[in-house]
Amino acid sequence: MDNTKKTVSLGVDIGGTNTAIGVVDAEGNVLVKANISTPTHGDVDLYVAEMGQTIRGLISDVTKLNPEVTFAGIGLGAPNANYYKGTIEYAPNLSFKGIIPLVDKLKALFPDMPKIIMTNDANAATMGEMVYGGAKGMKEFVMYTLGTGVGSGLVVDGKLVYGHDGFAGECGHTMLIPGGRVCGCGIRGHLEAYCSAIGMKRTAFELLAEYNANDSLLASKPFAELESKDIYDAAVKGDKIALMVFEKTGDYLAQGIANTIHHTSPEAVFIFGGPTAAGDLIFEPIRKNLDKYLLTIFKGKCKILPSALKRGDAAIVGASALVMD
Amino acid sequence: MDNTKKTVSLGVDIGGTNTAIGVVDAEGNVLVKANISTPTHGDVDLYVAEMGQTIRGLISDVTKLNPEVTFAGIGLGAPNANYYKGTIEYAPNLSFKGIIPLVDKLKALFPDMPKIIMTNDANAATMGEMVYGGAKGMKEFVMYTLGTGVGSGLVVDGKLVYGHDGFAGECGHTMLIPGGRVCGCGIRGHLEAYCSAIGMKRTAFELLAEYNANDSLLASKPFAELESKDIYDAAVKGDKIALMVFEKTGDYLAQGIANTIHHTSPEAVFIFGGPTAAGDLIFEPIRKNLDKYLLTIFKGKCKILPSALKRGDAAIVGASALVMD
Repeated sequence: MDNTKKTVSLGVDIGGTNTAIGVVDAEGNVLVKANISTPTHGDVDLYVAEMGQTIRGLISDVTKLNPEVTFAGIGLGAPNANYYKGTIEYAPNLSFKGIIPLVDKLKALFPDMPKIIMTNDANAATMGEMVYGGAKGMKEFVMYTLGTGVGSGLVVDGKLVYGHDGFAGECGHTMLIPGGRVCGCGIRGHLEAYCSAIGMKRTAFELLAEYNANDSLLASKPFAELESKDIYDAAVKGDKIALMVFEKTGDYLAQGIANTIHHTSPEAVFIFGGPTAAGDLIFEPIRKNLDKYLLTIFKGKCKILPSALKRGDAAIVGASALVMD
Repeated sequence: MDNTKKTVSLGVDIGGTNTAIGVVDAEGNVLVKANISTPTHGDVDLYVAEMGQTIRGLISDVTKLNPEVTFAGIGLGAPNANYYKGTIEYAPNLSFKGIIPLVDKLKALFPDMPKIIMTNDANAATMGEMVYGGAKGMKEFVMYTLGTGVGSGLVVDGKLVYGHDGFAGECGHTMLIPGGRVCGCGIRGHLEAYCSAIGMKRTAFELLAEYNANDSLLASKPFAELESKDIYDAAVKGDKIALMVFEKTGDYLAQGIANTIHHTSPEAVFIFGGPTAAGDLIFEPIRKNLDKYLLTIFKGKCKILPSALKRGDAAIVGASALVMD
């Protein structure tokens, strides 16, 4: 970090067990970071106090490195975050029940901070892609995030789509196969139940059952223990069932992405998260199958690209982008 | 029309056989209108010349009524219209093949017209709903148009979504039932194959077959002759198969609309077109089934409303709205 005057921002990534906080410069580099526990049976005010103390520590660290630095604000990514109200609402994976006015609580601690903005983690990653990543300069794009669940963020005319209530961009819960697998949300057939890392495991076990594939490398682990990394390792060794998992997942994603293209016709769809580490194994079947679901006017137009955000810091960097535009 | 200075606009609705042209005032009233044939094996330049002549005639008629009138522009609704380029591209139901630069041709005829804008018919209807109809003042809404096909238009942050290529908003071609009925576009399972007026007829014949329903009022007409009006008439008389057609169509629409809500989270979804004349017969099953496809954060929030545009003039009025904002 040079000694000229620089604008930086704070990014906060609130997960089910861990909250990561970092200071990010205008190029998307994390300068300093720290972790605190997300309480598992929680007093919100104690948690906010600890978050505030950690943020003050990071501000102090960065200011020591460069006294000329200015802070653009605090961006937060959290499950079920309401962008307009600055609240976390009924998040099933957090111990905070009901509606938590987190942004107001932070504003009380940091009254001079220019902006404090919160949205869900996938929307934050989408902002990160636009501000620091592969979508720089794009005005129409979409991001799908594949992890335990499937999140998404939509950008239209250069702005993140929040919808009338602040919750837009839940493509993981669009319908893929009516009456199909039970999704984490309780509804059958959603994309997330097929295309998340857990969805890939479920596909693997369906295929083992369909082909009675005792000779597959995946046949030696019980359901509760198989991880998506195992599927990748087996696919690299040429295991037929594992390769079929990637083929099917890519086709499922192609069907879901086609629905998104028929909605907002983006220039590109970025895909982020663990399964994208498999590279062509996952991207090829998406690209190969996409056109079969598209109207002629859309065929061959939309780029399917890996996210350019570094995986480790993407959530912090994405959250910080909310206040960096 | 009073004699004070008034701004009006021209709306042009290009259909497969007929092109309707009208002058619309700021309240959405059609002041004068005329029709010309859309050529069925066509010379585009002759067609544009006739359109120009008709427009001049209408301008003259309105100017005679009120010499103080000013024209905001010409808005056009056409199948496969590219908003950005002002072209009609590979429209399957028009005789013009390839890419037709219709807006440029009209600009050559009307060099002094402030705006000449073209988009597809469903987007035009959506603009009509926003400028003159039930969506006045709404910044986040969606319109589904049910007719021979199913069209749609998305409004985000007060603006119609055109996407990177000008073709966004084709929700009729999102996937409803993978591997299902063949859609007009050739792909199996699209919403349009189930929820258009023709889709309702197909549902009726599937149900007749499923229940071997010789006693249904719908059992007396051959496939080629049954119209959606027949299904409505039978439903009003209590015919069980006809009532089931409306139930199923509403459920199909609920599934499709839920996908749209998971994308852009609109305040309301307006539904326009012939089948909406059935009122509660179609709206009740949509509203009743919608929540079962939605994440908790979306349940009970999005209004499902009939379009407030008058059916006869909606296409002209919608097209005129493109230049009225």
